Amino acid sequence: MAQALRFPNLISLAAGFVDNATLPCEAVSRSLNDLACDSNRLRKSLQYGTAAGLDELRQAIIDWSYAEMPGHTVTRDRMLLASGSNQLLHLLAETILDPGDIVIVAAPTYFVYLGTLRSMGARTISVRSDQDGMCVRSLRDQLEQLAEAGQANRVKAIYCITDFDNPRGSTLSLERRREMLQVVEDWRKEHGPMLLISDNAYQHLRYNGEALPPMISLSDAAPDFVVDLGTFSKVFSPGIRVGWGIFPRELIEALLDVRSNIDFGAPHINQSLIHSALTSGDLMQHLPTIRKGYQIKRDAMLEALNEHMADVPGVHWDKPAGGMYVWLRLPEHMDASEQGELWRLATEHGVLYVPGHHCFAAEGQAVECNTIRLSFGVQTPESIRAGIERLAHAVKELSAIAVE
Amino acid sequence: MAQALRFPNLISLAAGFVDNATLPCEAVSRSLNDLACDSNRLRKSLQYGTAAGLDELRQAIIDWSYAEMPGHTVTRDRMLLASGSNQLLHLLAETILDPGDIVIVAAPTYFVYLGTLRSMGARTISVRSDQDGMCVRSLRDQLEQLAEAGQANRVKAIYCITDFDNPRGSTLSLERRREMLQVVEDWRKEHGPMLLISDNAYQHLRYNGEALPPMISLSDAAPDFVVDLGTFSKVFSPGIRVGWGIFPRELIEALLDVRSNIDFGAPHINQSLIHSALTSGDLMQHLPTIRKGYQIKRDAMLEALNEHMADVPGVHWDKPAGGMYVWLRLPEHMDASEQGELWRLATEHGVLYVPGHHCFAAEGQAVECNTIRLSFGVQTPESIRAGIERLAHAVKELSAIAVE
Repeated sequence: MAQALRFPNLISLAAGFVDNATLPCEAVSRSLNDLACDSNRLRKSLQYGTAAGLDELRQAIIDWSYAEMPGHTVTRDRMLLASGSNQLLHLLAETILDPGDIVIVAAPTYFVYLGTLRSMGARTISVRSDQDGMCVRSLRDQLEQLAEAGQANRVKAIYCITDFDNPRGSTLSLERRREMLQVVEDWRKEHGPMLLISDNAYQHLRYNGEALPPMISLSDAAPDFVVDLGTFSKVFSPGIRVGWGIFPRELIEALLDVRSNIDFGAPHINQSLIHSALTSGDLMQHLPTIRKGYQIKRDAMLEALNEHMADVPGVHWDKPAGGMYVWLRLPEHMDASEQGELWRLATEHGVLYVPGHHCFAAEGQAVECNTIRLSFGVQTPESIRAGIERLAHAVKELSAIAVE
Repeated sequence: MAQALRFPNLISLAAGFVDNATLPCEAVSRSLNDLACDSNRLRKSLQYGTAAGLDELRQAIIDWSYAEMPGHTVTRDRMLLASGSNQLLHLLAETILDPGDIVIVAAPTYFVYLGTLRSMGARTISVRSDQDGMCVRSLRDQLEQLAEAGQANRVKAIYCITDFDNPRGSTLSLERRREMLQVVEDWRKEHGPMLLISDNAYQHLRYNGEALPPMISLSDAAPDFVVDLGTFSKVFSPGIRVGWGIFPRELIEALLDVRSNIDFGAPHINQSLIHSALTSGDLMQHLPTIRKGYQIKRDAMLEALNEHMADVPGVHWDKPAGGMYVWLRLPEHMDASEQGELWRLATEHGVLYVPGHHCFAAEGQAVECNTIRLSFGVQTPESIRAGIERLAHAVKELSAIAVE
């Protein structure tokens, strides 16, 4: 923020905000008018809702997002709604974690969640990841080490962003999904409860390729230990902000207990607006527009990277099939953190990014300071191209110095 | 809930919900239509907001609720918005409390907050209260004891609901407000930081008598240690759910840090709707309707108590000048808890209440199991009268048994 004020022409490729141009103004406008005219529904929407969330919205989410899942067994009584799925990550952590408990994450992973876990005194341990998401062999090794060290009872969950991960853009392959479920099933037989948190925040933002089945659908036992999180923030509107979570049945009561101290459930009116957009078909109809908007931006970013960075030795990036992020790896010596030269040079050139070191857990894999998270969510394609060009200038300047 | 299912004609005087009949349907209907028509504002409302909350809403709240305060120094940069003030109580606790830290409360006090503190491993210690709120002498004694026991550095806050307290209905007298401020100022000089949390959730729900100035306005030093909480849930709509807090300046950054892990701020669209209701004057215009509705219900409850309970020995209640609650004290031997006979009898007669024992802290004053919180917020005046009559039957039956 301070940087943005000092350099007013700064192009931010940092913020995880959504695309302004494709926000569903018309659809929400209709929902607002409908609600304004329906005095019965309006009156209900102005009262407190329930802690779990609006019954009919939970059912509509199941019908929309889970009904076609093979062997679908998701029911309303295992679903909680909240003001975004991030609130549910926080609620779950508050419910199941004691200080010193361990959550396994990918290296890199979602830095906000790392902050949540840190603030609760939990330990975060990372395992290797690549373009196909978390490496299952690295996960197995890490779990084995923890068991050997007598820490098995402290391992409470594995966290992964299944599709178009934040920050890597990677998607967990079908094979790995199956393997991870097996790892957790085996662990639970030997060591007792452990959750597999499958964060599907970006699930509906796929721009090419076929959708993969969510982990909760991939084995009969999965619903006993998979937490499946989704949100309307990215595919509809973060300003209305409704997210959902499917939890193992025996966790629901404890989650509602903790929640009853915080906010008595998400604001009713937001749930009502999302319900109307979902059941009217407006949300589904708007999805292609949102996807198309992001796809153009993703392509703009990848093309610009190709144009300006392909010739810089030691610079690599993946090509995400969806989501909002590109993960950039710089030459090993190059420090992209706020303390490094690149940060200073980049802001001088007028571009902002998220230094990748924030996305690494406290333990496990080494922190890679030569990494950057780039977001193509907010800026126009033109600004994305300009931003990448500016960043490339900064990187090349530093590379040249290093060569000299 | 289970009780409500078993006895479908149950009248609940338990829930703290607001009055359905006076929900501001027309005003919100206008706000919804306005937002639907203003595409610029709508587009903004659909994007993420800031963690502190909509700038113009914070200013509007100051103009509405603080501008006429003598010596008013409240500024936007010390105000945070949230989905209800309860979220801010939770956020503050998460930010300032370590396990074993102490918060001083009244006996009785708001049971949801006791749950929050308990879940964080904080200690709650109660001091005496009467019709004028927390007894300052009891507060001084308790603090002295804690200091003598070497616990001074663990005392982090005093919590009180300034007007029409939940559950007692009591309002802190002007003299006590001044004395409490002095107590905290003295303490801070000798022992260091301590906050005075002044929860003003019911502040605008006064049905008779003159409004008293909020504590934050009563001394020059007050803004350095008073946390002032307010909400639109009770005076407008809990389904839109926007609350606010004024905090000492040096706490703001830490609060925003903690919050950035939870929800990135309250949903934007709710803030936009409240802003439009506040600046259009709709909210102010609706207030007398809400007040009138509650006043009639309060009077119905007090009249019914007078009619059916005045002759029962050992039964007492206060007459709240506002808010939503009446605190009933039964004969000392009578156990009103879920384990007692009264609870069973009352549900059989078809009336539900909040057993008062939930409202007592873990330490300090003795838990009084012969108490009940009655809410006149939800039921119609007729149901309130019927509910009190049913409760009186149960109490009289038990009193008769006790006399035999």
